[in-house]
Amino acid sequence: MIAVLARAGGIAPGARLVLDAEEARHVEVRRAKGGEAVTVLDGAGTRGFGRLVRHDERFAVDVERVTQEPRPPAVTLAVGAGDRDRFALVAEQAAQFGATRIIPVESEHTRAVATRLRDSHLDRVRRRSREALKQCGGAWEPEVTAPTALELVFSALLPGARWLTDHAGGEAPSLSAEAPLTILVGPEGGFTAAERELALQAGFVPVRLGPHILRFDTAALAALSTAWQVRQRGAHG
Amino acid sequence: MIAVLARAGGIAPGARLVLDAEEARHVEVRRAKGGEAVTVLDGAGTRGFGRLVRHDERFAVDVERVTQEPRPPAVTLAVGAGDRDRFALVAEQAAQFGATRIIPVESEHTRAVATRLRDSHLDRVRRRSREALKQCGGAWEPEVTAPTALELVFSALLPGARWLTDHAGGEAPSLSAEAPLTILVGPEGGFTAAERELALQAGFVPVRLGPHILRFDTAALAALSTAWQVRQRGAHG
Repeated sequence: MIAVLARAGGIAPGARLVLDAEEARHVEVRRAKGGEAVTVLDGAGTRGFGRLVRHDERFAVDVERVTQEPRPPAVTLAVGAGDRDRFALVAEQAAQFGATRIIPVESEHTRAVATRLRDSHLDRVRRRSREALKQCGGAWEPEVTAPTALELVFSALLPGARWLTDHAGGEAPSLSAEAPLTILVGPEGGFTAAERELALQAGFVPVRLGPHILRFDTAALAALSTAWQVRQRGAHG
Repeated sequence: MIAVLARAGGIAPGARLVLDAEEARHVEVRRAKGGEAVTVLDGAGTRGFGRLVRHDERFAVDVERVTQEPRPPAVTLAVGAGDRDRFALVAEQAAQFGATRIIPVESEHTRAVATRLRDSHLDRVRRRSREALKQCGGAWEPEVTAPTALELVFSALLPGARWLTDHAGGEAPSLSAEAPLTILVGPEGGFTAAERELALQAGFVPVRLGPHILRFDTAALAALSTAWQVRQRGAHG
């Protein structure tokens, strides 16, 4: 079924939601026709089911039924804001894994990356993670924060478990189904020894995620995948 | 430590390996100097340790010591050969996870993708997966086969376990440390119902890898990550 995005707050039974230009284009590319069943997502837990209709030369959805999905367990992905294309991909993949917050982290080694993520690129990253919902069917979009200095991540009140993706680390610790988790991933070139030491002092547990050293984008996804596996294992014994 | 690639067969103690143009560029970009310690990888299990030297205006490595790494467990990743950029990324990430073989699969839905992977793009994919070794330190590069029809994958003699990445699937089955594994991932748009049925008949077990429907590139990496986790779990109790 085709999924479209709508602003939060408007999805209710009986409502007619006129699609914005981007969503209308998406519907056209998919060659959807009037009368076709569609899902409407607002990225804030609401999922509407309805029919596509034409409305003043535009596309709209007549919402018939609405469900509300509970907020998923809090998973914060704090990733070195290196290469901006790979960061956008990470945001897209993180949305597919139900991450709730993505923090682009500024550290010693990100400053040297010419193509690094800056405030001006965030709109694209947010769009990519939001767009991913249409394909994966997730009801919640991750919040993508502004680039944040590593020291601020350490001083933030992060509830729950803390993992540092690290080839020298150990097995992933167990995690209950609802436990909040913060995953910290170093940028291209890694964290410096001093930064790593601060992470350990801040309670981050080094976790090894594969047979070799992983690039930051691979490490981010492997950590999200592993966290999901570990939660499932906990839930099913 | 800087890593460089060399052809298989030449890495031996006492050998002087002259770097090809691409590796020489890599060494220059990394601003390596004569006398610097480097690792040489051939993608076939040999790892040389030596020093960078200048040789007739070119760069070479004087190999001092050599280790041989056993072949990793056979992991074949058969992925719908859709979007070629994402496929190249999958190959790079698969190399980081020690996949031994990558098969671009042609199926009903890949034929509709204008940018799909063809024979002519394979060199780039192979280069990406080989290049990944330099960063991740793996000693074995995956074999990347020519695009292969799905029916041929089904009729091939695939030893060991078979997973089909599938949102409707179950928990990942256990896997011993050395068991061969074939992971089948549908293309953009998925497999058709008929193709999925053939996969089940061929003994592929549907495995769910995340909370939502995963895009093929995300699913491929999640499957490799999960397989590694499952093997580790088996090894450590």
